[in-house]
Amino acid sequence: MPEIPLSEKTLTVAGLSESDLLARIFPRLEMDARHSAATVLGPGDDAAIISASDGRTVISIDTQVQDQDFRLRWANGYHTTGFDVGWKAAAQNLSDINAMGATATSLVVSLTLPPGTLVSWVEDLADGLAAGIRELGAEECSVAGGDLGRGREISVTAAVLGTLNGGRAVLRSGARPGDVLALAGTVGHAAAGLALLESELDVHSLTPEQRALLDIQCRPQPPLWAGPLARTAGATAMLDISDGLVRDGARLAGASGAVLDLEPRELGRLGERLGPASELLGVDPLTWVLGGGEDHGLLATFPSGIQLPSGFTAIGSVQALGTTESPGVKIAGRVTGAGGWDHFAD
Amino acid sequence: MPEIPLSEKTLTVAGLSESDLLARIFPRLEMDARHSAATVLGPGDDAAIISASDGRTVISIDTQVQDQDFRLRWANGYHTTGFDVGWKAAAQNLSDINAMGATATSLVVSLTLPPGTLVSWVEDLADGLAAGIRELGAEECSVAGGDLGRGREISVTAAVLGTLNGGRAVLRSGARPGDVLALAGTVGHAAAGLALLESELDVHSLTPEQRALLDIQCRPQPPLWAGPLARTAGATAMLDISDGLVRDGARLAGASGAVLDLEPRELGRLGERLGPASELLGVDPLTWVLGGGEDHGLLATFPSGIQLPSGFTAIGSVQALGTTESPGVKIAGRVTGAGGWDHFAD
Repeated sequence: MPEIPLSEKTLTVAGLSESDLLARIFPRLEMDARHSAATVLGPGDDAAIISASDGRTVISIDTQVQDQDFRLRWANGYHTTGFDVGWKAAAQNLSDINAMGATATSLVVSLTLPPGTLVSWVEDLADGLAAGIRELGAEECSVAGGDLGRGREISVTAAVLGTLNGGRAVLRSGARPGDVLALAGTVGHAAAGLALLESELDVHSLTPEQRALLDIQCRPQPPLWAGPLARTAGATAMLDISDGLVRDGARLAGASGAVLDLEPRELGRLGERLGPASELLGVDPLTWVLGGGEDHGLLATFPSGIQLPSGFTAIGSVQALGTTESPGVKIAGRVTGAGGWDHFAD
Repeated sequence: MPEIPLSEKTLTVAGLSESDLLARIFPRLEMDARHSAATVLGPGDDAAIISASDGRTVISIDTQVQDQDFRLRWANGYHTTGFDVGWKAAAQNLSDINAMGATATSLVVSLTLPPGTLVSWVEDLADGLAAGIRELGAEECSVAGGDLGRGREISVTAAVLGTLNGGRAVLRSGARPGDVLALAGTVGHAAAGLALLESELDVHSLTPEQRALLDIQCRPQPPLWAGPLARTAGATAMLDISDGLVRDGARLAGASGAVLDLEPRELGRLGERLGPASELLGVDPLTWVLGGGEDHGLLATFPSGIQLPSGFTAIGSVQALGTTESPGVKIAGRVTGAGGWDHFAD
């Protein structure tokens, strides 16, 4: 292993010009060598150009801010790496494209960095971003451009483009009474991982199962294969669970003018997977299943009678609104008060 | 004029849920009523869908951070309004699309807000964003979606999409020896405005001419008509001047492998317009002309002999590299040491 000079280990972004910092980031994103097929013009000009072969572009934008979306050092001693933050930026943005039934073609990234940020941390972020795109399976996607600036706190914003390849988009508004409600990916794991990070239980004392939950919080694993699959299978509505099953479910229910009824036995099964954390911390796992976001699992509805696509599990059904009823989420026919994540309300 | 209750005047974003805050922003962006023709699907789902009729999308991303790109209160007493910040976000992003010779079709915006931010300030930001898009002439563009979150400082990131309408993009790399170097829009006005803001000369004591320079810093006026016009007129290379004429000129020169030679008489004419500030502050106006960014004027090169499109003024020429010469910017054949803006270097 080559020895890294001390000056390199302690080098901060204040010690480099913008172009020098970019010159360290670009190769890690493979921006200089390999572009995805969708990239017509990559970084280096005023804007990038991305192919949109069916005449439409799907677009979303999402920001992560230090001490809001991640802490550099958690109560349990875990240090968030640049790799984690880069991975998470990729994961949560790619998930929004997945939730439309689309495939990501390009990311552009804006980084705000305090002057004291280590250059090695930023390089690690670039590595995590590239690894997230690649390992989550967004093979047609690459980073096509970005922006760098200073601030008092680290902030990473990515905008992601995608293609529907000529198909329809799966909106939140298409669920119909009688549809099956189904889930792909996990729910509650990232919330259990957050609870472990915020506990004072030493990160090194965790079992592999507990550590796996923590890792989902730091490096979410959205099921990117599931969105396009659900679309071609005939999904009527879909969204990604970023703020919690009940909160996001209520959004889908509201857009569709219906009620989502969750099956208690299925919720119990989802909760069982959280046992390694719930037993340690003495928390009811249903709290995490119903209220936890950030796994970026997909919640979708399908016409009853069709075979669910591989990887989806039925967890409930769509029901018609009663005459005096508002759209929302129930459990076995009863209204639930479980919440989820709101960025402003305390 | 209807009386505004005190509670409304002092309401902060911490007092509203995310959905309540969005409900106040959307109507101001006319998101609920009018979309541009390019918007296939507007806000409210996991992602938006924008038309890309020629099978390509032009994309850029840019961030403004409090105390880096603007101060809420300046040394001269001026308070940056939400309207200013919204306008500037629109202007600097739309300018990147303009600099490719393209036309903007859509903006998505991510806002990071401290909990104590007044809701009225955020509403004002939405108004400024909408006004900037409309009054700068981006008629085909609307805000198609966004993201809201908390942070310790205000940060506004916009990603902007555009279309080349089937035409070529004008890159930085196409300038050829013998081309005419031309400018559309202003240069140095925003820098003169910044100097006024940073002076301790009371904002209320400024003459209308001085105030107009300050206004260009707070609400830049990029010539959005000029980019597509330059493209169809045959521009060989183009970029927007966001970091200064010399610094951005060197980027164009570097990408094209050439030297840009600026004409002193034209620089003098550009400097004359800055007289109201340079006389007051005792600053050589050429400092601002050569080093000032943020006006977002367009620097373009055209084959010699063609008539420059309306609104462009010749300010120099493109010259071949000498055998031992590096690409860069000269004034009347002499190398200039004038700098420009670097986000990290002090």
